[in-house]
Amino acid sequence: MSELRRPRVGHIEFLNCVPIYWGLMRSGALLDVDLTRASPVALNDALVAGELDIAPISLVEYLRHAEDLVLLPGVAVGSDGPVLSVNIVHERPLSALDGGRVALGSSSRTGVLLAQMLLTEKYGVDCEFVQAEPDVPRMLEKADAAVVIGDVALRAMYEAPQRGLSVTDLGAAWRDWAGVPMVFAVWAVRREFAQKNPGQVKAVHDAFLRSVRLCLAELDVVAEATSRWEPFDASTLAGYFRSLDFSLGERQLTGLRAFAEKAAARGEVPPLPTEGPDLFCG
Amino acid sequence: MSELRRPRVGHIEFLNCVPIYWGLMRSGALLDVDLTRASPVALNDALVAGELDIAPISLVEYLRHAEDLVLLPGVAVGSDGPVLSVNIVHERPLSALDGGRVALGSSSRTGVLLAQMLLTEKYGVDCEFVQAEPDVPRMLEKADAAVVIGDVALRAMYEAPQRGLSVTDLGAAWRDWAGVPMVFAVWAVRREFAQKNPGQVKAVHDAFLRSVRLCLAELDVVAEATSRWEPFDASTLAGYFRSLDFSLGERQLTGLRAFAEKAAARGEVPPLPTEGPDLFCG
Repeated sequence: MSELRRPRVGHIEFLNCVPIYWGLMRSGALLDVDLTRASPVALNDALVAGELDIAPISLVEYLRHAEDLVLLPGVAVGSDGPVLSVNIVHERPLSALDGGRVALGSSSRTGVLLAQMLLTEKYGVDCEFVQAEPDVPRMLEKADAAVVIGDVALRAMYEAPQRGLSVTDLGAAWRDWAGVPMVFAVWAVRREFAQKNPGQVKAVHDAFLRSVRLCLAELDVVAEATSRWEPFDASTLAGYFRSLDFSLGERQLTGLRAFAEKAAARGEVPPLPTEGPDLFCG
Repeated sequence: MSELRRPRVGHIEFLNCVPIYWGLMRSGALLDVDLTRASPVALNDALVAGELDIAPISLVEYLRHAEDLVLLPGVAVGSDGPVLSVNIVHERPLSALDGGRVALGSSSRTGVLLAQMLLTEKYGVDCEFVQAEPDVPRMLEKADAAVVIGDVALRAMYEAPQRGLSVTDLGAAWRDWAGVPMVFAVWAVRREFAQKNPGQVKAVHDAFLRSVRLCLAELDVVAEATSRWEPFDASTLAGYFRSLDFSLGERQLTGLRAFAEKAAARGEVPPLPTEGPDLFCG
């Protein structure tokens, strides 16, 4: 009697990934994976350390470890315009942050780098960047702007106006600046695992593609079910889910390469090979 | 904006509970619970310690902590005859174990007590009981019989004949002896949680009842899907799932009370109140 090991797969415990979880659940695919639910940062580390075989990973972390990883095409978390949940929260206009201090939320990798690119390269401001726990009121006690992602950022967007704060949506700002979609997280498989278990990776990849299709068809149901437990109503959640782009096709890859090029120019990541990124083709 | 907390619910990571997981998954109920997947013993401890709100719990542990817990009717893991996965593996007939040593697998609470009842009360043997890790070959190095449950027991049942070992199915032996079904695990909610959150408990209870109905209708699909990752083929798994009784109705409660009475007579648990067990009625 042989014993197979289910692939160790990561799942982001943020609202933005609930639709993908829904798809994995309703399609029955959860039975075929050993799922670890955690924060993006914890999943980044676990995939890089080889504690997971397949997981979503922050674009920046993927670029840093592209040698060990292969991307799963067709699935990502990105946006082609406003993303609602990757934000700079600020008191004065971004162009007036020169000489100021910007707090970078510790739960973000790609969002905080995008914010730094935007502030220094587009707005030409010279400011100090400091790491901070992702808690907007506390960040703004010691800084002039706060970069946050995920549920914290989504909530900040709704609460900022009543506190006299401005919010810059980094998905929209990137689109406006670079003219291409932004990709915040990709799904990757460890290269060694993919070489040894191509059939298993293909099965998980197919399951993710099915999940994305299924959840897109049922976004209102997902939003309704999710709203029972979250501080957002169903229509807010449906709008949020629809602002996200869960696909990774040619346009998104163009956006990914544009971001990779800017990140490499800043010395933050190694350059992507010309034909990169390396895509899994089961 | 209010923030609700999902009920903290336990799930047994044994093959016998895959059908229930399937039901929770396919019905979408997983989205409404904060699910912890663990071994039965870990879940027993977590529910008793208040780290979970609702969880499956070994019948013996339920009886020991019945004051703090309320049973969810309609869902259980039991059998009305062979259960296939709660076994005594032995070299000589049970009646010849007098003066011998029986190793009790540490992953079991109810199964090991049932084995002790059967050996001492039905077979009248006087033997030494010792705790051991649930590993049949190792247990039999130092004992004449081994009591194991779950996947280990199921595998032992298939492997025993070729090793010249006998297997006594404790579900069948109980049925034969007591004339009523056996209940190995029940689902319970902490009394305090149920008093404070009756609506949430009703929702989770309904989800479990739906899951049981759904999985019973799809047992062959569940078996086929599960067989990809387990050392058993689909028909073996389907047979196993069909041997289990996931219900908790009047007949099963009669079996539960009969076991509780014998357990109390041995001083292992406090007696159930006459009108017990206390059932949740949402």
